[in-house]
Formats: sequence, structure tokens, C-alpha cells
Amino acid sequence: MESTGKRAVDLSKKIEKVTENSSISAGLAPQFCDIEQIAANVDIPIFAQHIDAITPGASTGHVLAESVKAAGADGTLVNHSERPLPLIEIDSCVELAKQAGLKTVVCAGTARLAAAVALSEPDMVAIEPPELIGTGRAVSKQNPEIVTESVKRVHKVNPTVPILCGAGISTGEDVYAALKLGTNGILVASAVVKAPKPEEVVAAFCEAILKAS
Amino acid sequence: MESTGKRAVDLSKKIEKVTENSSISAGLAPQFCDIEQIAANVDIPIFAQHIDAITPGASTGHVLAESVKAAGADGTLVNHSERPLPLIEIDSCVELAKQAGLKTVVCAGTARLAAAVALSEPDMVAIEPPELIGTGRAVSKQNPEIVTESVKRVHKVNPTVPILCGAGISTGEDVYAALKLGTNGILVASAVVKAPKPEEVVAAFCEAILKAS
Amino acid sequence: MESTGKRAVDLSKKIEKVTENSSISAGLAPQFCDIEQIAANVDIPIFAQHIDAITPGASTGHVLAESVKAAGADGTLVNHSERPLPLIEIDSCVELAKQAGLKTVVCAGTARLAAAVALSEPDMVAIEPPELIGTGRAVSKQNPEIVTESVKRVHKVNPTVPILCGAGISTGEDVYAALKLGTNGILVASAVVKAPKPEEVVAAFCEAILKAS
Amino acid sequence: MESTGKRAVDLSKKIEKVTENSSISAGLAPQFCDIEQIAANVDIPIFAQHIDAITPGASTGHVLAESVKAAGADGTLVNHSERPLPLIEIDSCVELAKQAGLKTVVCAGTARLAAAVALSEPDMVAIEPPELIGTGRAVSKQNPEIVTESVKRVHKVNPTVPILCGAGISTGEDVYAALKLGTNGILVASAVVKAPKPEEVVAAFCEAILKAS
Repeated sequence: MESTGKRAVDLSKKIEKVTENSSISAGLAPQFCDIEQIAANVDIPIFAQHIDAITPGASTGHVLAESVKAAGADGTLVNHSERPLPLIEIDSCVELAKQAGLKTVVCAGTARLAAAVALSEPDMVAIEPPELIGTGRAVSKQNPEIVTESVKRVHKVNPTVPILCGAGISTGEDVYAALKLGTNGILVASAVVKAPKPEEVVAAFCEAILKAS
Repeated sequence: MESTGKRAVDLSKKIEKVTENSSISAGLAPQFCDIEQIAANVDIPIFAQHIDAITPGASTGHVLAESVKAAGADGTLVNHSERPLPLIEIDSCVELAKQAGLKTVVCAGTARLAAAVALSEPDMVAIEPPELIGTGRAVSKQNPEIVTESVKRVHKVNPTVPILCGAGISTGEDVYAALKLGTNGILVASAVVKAPKPEEVVAAFCEAILKAS
Repeated sequence: MESTGKRAVDLSKKIEKVTENSSISAGLAPQFCDIEQIAANVDIPIFAQHIDAITPGASTGHVLAESVKAAGADGTLVNHSERPLPLIEIDSCVELAKQAGLKTVVCAGTARLAAAVALSEPDMVAIEPPELIGTGRAVSKQNPEIVTESVKRVHKVNPTVPILCGAGISTGEDVYAALKLGTNGILVASAVVKAPKPEEVVAAFCEAILKAS
Repeated sequence: MESTGKRAVDLSKKIEKVTENSSISAGLAPQFCDIEQIAANVDIPIFAQHIDAITPGASTGHVLAESVKAAGADGTLVNHSERPLPLIEIDSCVELAKQAGLKTVVCAGTARLAAAVALSEPDMVAIEPPELIGTGRAVSKQNPEIVTESVKRVHKVNPTVPILCGAGISTGEDVYAALKLGTNGILVASAVVKAPKPEEVVAAFCEAILKAS
């Protein structure tokens, strides 16, 4: 609820403000209904949380790539652990997103699955062990091996794809650790959304990223 | 694509204009990403096409009732034939929608299933035989028995719930037939969305409704 | 694992032995792969745990009604809480089962949903609140209202369908309470399957049923 | 229906007879309910058509690896195009099958997806473009590029895994072509199951395999 409707727009403005004069790219992945108003209010990358592997037509109740693009999104998450997809649909979503002009961040929960999704040639791969999501225990500290193993396996099959990591990331230290393990960025939800002062959390993350560079 | 983004807003304004001085209530069920901008531009009821049977929390990629409400929707479709739901989720969606202050139109494809969903006490029941959806052959003319049987079976278990019917409805005559069979309104998509002049189609529907009253 | 393969056959024989000279009908719902061998070894009703709403053809990996019938099953469960189905498929499964000569026991977790599935005219309705399944706390004692409310609502829309109840049923007392609430029988899994002497548990159930009659 | 119940057992015996004195390994993937009786009657490898990514416990209506193993199966198909699975479940099924002592044949519809599933280290990968399944137009002749591309991509990430191909394979020539494209075997359904004399079709396949070796 902290990231729904007007509160989502407010949060987006705060995050934009923290990052606007830096070299860091902060993207947002709001709920579908909030994409349009956030896109109209901030100038940072916006991602849908999901698209359906479906083309316009008999698609009532589904999320079309074209619709999220028309609302102003720049990209979409695919296969988030809270919205797992059949393998064949992951591939179709990456393809449909490309056709609609959307970037893709495809998520996976293990190093092996991260490599599998990297074969679909998304714009980014995100590794998020589901068992740590929302726990406040950072994957980059609790399970650094899964991060390094993911980086290794992903780059073996797709040497150039940027890799994000997420799950439990809460502090600048967690972010610093994640980048030092070979990732190119992080995925974060509750640590920012539920913070009393989200802009301070994001500022700490930015500082850690610059330090790690 | 005719009902995505700016075109959805334009279409909504046209429909509002046709119905604004009449006693007829015309609602819209746009894509999720278009709800907010349509709600900001027209003053007629807006329905989401679907909500997920899920509460805020670990719901990335899902559609929360609270989110569509915050975007300005007045209600939601549930169990559309292109987005069929487990029985238990139909019931949960009606409940979650009520809690969020959303009206519900629960869809079913047969008379028996229409009665089954009427037991969940939605605000409206819609009968739409999937085999006629998008065909241009109106359920109210091709299969009037399914409409009368639905009205009978629904009212047996829930005497007061309004009943809509849809599938293939294209002309004023189709609408007139539908109301004369005992329904309280219609659900329509392609006949309006794909019409060269959607406002004329809606005007013809309105005329038929007034004639049937 | 206690009810897989040879152990399932042994268990079935024990249950048959307890009930064979009584007026009580005990049915079994083994795993798909065990239906054939159990049917070949005992002479009591056998139910599949599920069938798919699919007809022969492109159905690799699915469970056809005809296949469970050919293996010797007499019926099938439909919509068990561990295998919930879209509303439309519940109805199709009842229909496909009838065509294949299989009896149906359609499950539901609430009184309202029990009435909804009763509209599909299955051979039996089973009410099983998922939150009590496998707990050892019997629905008939923990939540007798849901049982009486289910009986009332089901019989309102389908006055003759027999009603089973399940979830947490462990003792003869639980069974007696269930029947006294207006049900016609019980559904039970772990209390029998995991008992050191399943035949004694079943014997206690039978005694309770006779006492309640 | 041609491969259900007793007819499945008869068909299995015929196939065993054709291959029993040859160096060719012919496996069968019958329906769940037929595994036990086929395993009891023939001595060739038997595969389930699917297992669920679930462990014993609250699994009513699902197919446990342990259950198909106990019935006599040697392995299982995973992710057949008629039973597509979430990526994460493909991986879990391979793992659960290994623990239960079952071989795995993981299916994929494109070269890219074939490589993705090869990362899960199944015992075999099968490439089956869904658009050709059941058409009688053999993938090995209609779309040889997808086969060679699959072999190339799969071996790049998993050099030793055997590769099967399927979809439309109907004649000895189709089989010969498939092996010459670098595959190690074929998957076939309707061409054998619906043949008036299945044993002759299988004999022709065997001849083609020996010729291609």
C-alpha cells in the first residue's frame, strides 16, 4: 500500500531527486495502474512488473506489452519470483517486449536458472533467491556464492548481459557487497518502499554504488 | 490496439458524450494501464478487466484491488472468459473488491455457471458464451435460450442481482433482443472498439435500450 | 509415501476387510499410478484424485477420464483443495466423468462454494475447509457451523445430493459429529494413512457411522 | 483412446517384440494409470508423461515422482509442449526425478529453449516444435535448421547430453533424417499409436536407425 496510487508518485519523485545529478540509473517498477501517472511525473526509467505472453485480441484481463509501452514504461520485469512463468512464456515475453520497444529484466532464483533465462537475450538478468526476498537478510551477504556462481554461469552463456541481484538488500553495505561480487546493480522493494525516509535509503545505496565503482 | 493508450481515452470521451444526457449508464473496462487517464478524463463508471485474488505484500506482477481503486476505477470484471479463475478465487475476488470499494461484474459462460457465480453475491452477473465472443453473431439472437435459462437459474439462487449478457452483440436489434430476454444490460467489446464510428454504435445501442424499457 | 505402490494395495485390502460385511461403503482415492493394482485387488469403490478437463488427443501429461475408468476406477474427486480448478473446468470435469461412467465427488472449502459446485450436479459434494485439512482438528467439532451451513446451502440448490465432510477427522467421535450435522459421510486422509494400525481407525469410524444412523 | 488401458498393454508388447533382439532402445510414455500394467508386462524403458514439482504430503491430485517410480517407470518426460511448466518447476522436476531414481527427458520447442533446459542437466533433451506435433510433417524434413541449431546450442552448454527430436515423425525416412542432423533418437506419438499396424511402423523406424548408425 505504501507504493500504490499517489504515494507511488510521491515516492518516485523522491527517488528521482536523489539520483538526478548522479551517474547512477535508478529505475522504478510500479503497479500497472500507476505506470502512466509516474511516467508523467518523473524522468527516470519505468518498468512494468510483468507482461503477459499474449498479443492484442482476445486478451481481456491480461497485460499487453503495447499497453505498458503506451502508458510510458521503458521496460518490464519478466518471471519475478512472485509471478513465475512457463519457460516458453519467458522467451515469448522477451520477444514481445522487444517488438514493443520495452527493455527486459528477467528474474531467476538460482544460478542455473539465471543462465537459462540469459539465453533468451534479455537486456538484464536479475538473480533473486526467493527464500531471501523481503527478509532484510541480503543475498550479497547471506549467500554470496549464489551471486558469484550466477555471474559465472550467466556470463558463460551470455558474456555481455548486465546482471542485477536482489533479495534482502537493505543497506549501503549490502549494495557494495553485491557490486563487488560482480553484479551491475540491484533490485530492491521493501527496504525502500517501507522505509520512513525512502530517499535516505536510496541515497545510501547511491553512495555505495559510487564507492564500489 | 484500438483501445490502448490515447485512443482509449478518446474512445471513452466519445462514449461519455453519447450517454451523458440519458438515463443509460455506460461503463468502460479499459486495460489496467489506461484506467488512471480515463478516470481523469471522463465521468462514467470504469471497471478493471480483472483483479488478482491477492492482498498487498508479495504481489509483484499482480493486480491489487486497492491499486485499481486508487487509479479511479469503480469496479472490476471477474472471471472473464479470456481470464478464467479457480472457483475459490472468484469468491475471493468478489470479497476483496467489496473491501476495496469496487463493484463486481462476474462473468460466466453457461447458465449453470452463471448461477454458481451469482452465489458469491457480486453486484452484477454477466453471461457470455465464449463460443460467440467476437463473432458478430449475437448471443441474444443465436442462442436466446442460454440467456433466458441464465436469467431463470441466476434469479432462482439470487433474485435481485442484475444480469448482463454479451458475446457477438453488434447492433441495436441485438441489444433490444437481449433486454427483452430479461437481462438488464449488455457487455460489448469489438463491435464498439473496432467500429469506424464507435459513437454511432453506442448511440444505436442506447436507442434500443430506451425502446426496450 | 505410506499410501504409494505396494503399501497402497496393502492398505486397501485392510480397509476392504473392515468394511466388507457391513452396510457401510468405504471408497478409496489412491494416486493415479496405483488405481489399476488396487482395483485388481479389492472390490470397493475407487476414485481418482483428479481428472483433467480435457478430451483424448493432445493431452500428454494430463489425466483423462477414460484412462482412470479403464484402470478400474469407479469415480473421481474434482476440485480438491490441493488441486483447485477454474470454475468452468469443475463443470467440464463433472460432464466428462459422467460420459466416461465415473461418479464425481466435487470438493469445496466453504458453504457458499459447496452450493456453487452442487449446481453442476455431481454425485456427491464434499465440504473441506482447507485450513483444517491435515491438522487433526476435526471440522465437525472445530467448525460445526460451516458443516450445517453447507448442508443448508447445498440442499437449497440441489436437495438430493449426498454431502461428505472432511478436514481433521481423526476419531469415531469426529465422524459421529459429522453425520449428526447432516452429512452423509466423511473424507479422510492422514488420520488413516498415517495411523500405525489403519484398520483400527477405520473400524472406529464404522462403529460411529452405525451409531449415528 | 488407442493407447489407453488394455490397448496400451497390447501396443507395448508389440513394440517390445520388434525391438527386443536389436541394439535399439525403445521406451514408452503411457498414461499414468497404465504405467503399472505395462511395466508388469514388458521389459523396455517406461517413462511417465509428466511429474509434478511437488513432494509427498499435501499433494492430492498431483503426480509424485515416487509414485511413478513405485509403479515401475524408469523415467519421466518433463515440460512436454502439451504440459508446459514454469521454468523453476522444470528444474525442480529434474531434481525430484533424480532423487526418486527416474531418468528425465526434458522437452523444448525451440533451439534456444532446448539449450535452456539442457542447463538443468537432464538425462536427455527433446526438441519438438509444437507447430508440427501431430501433423505428419516431420520436423527433420520440414525444419531441419531447428534441429541442427538445437544440437549446436544444446551441446554448447551441455556437450554430452543426448538429444531426441520429435514432431511429425512418421516414416523411416523422417527418422533417418533426424539422426543425420545430429540427434540421438526420436520422440513419436500419433504415427505409431494411430497406425493400423504399429509394429510395422516401429520396424521401419528401427531399420532407419540402424542404417543411420
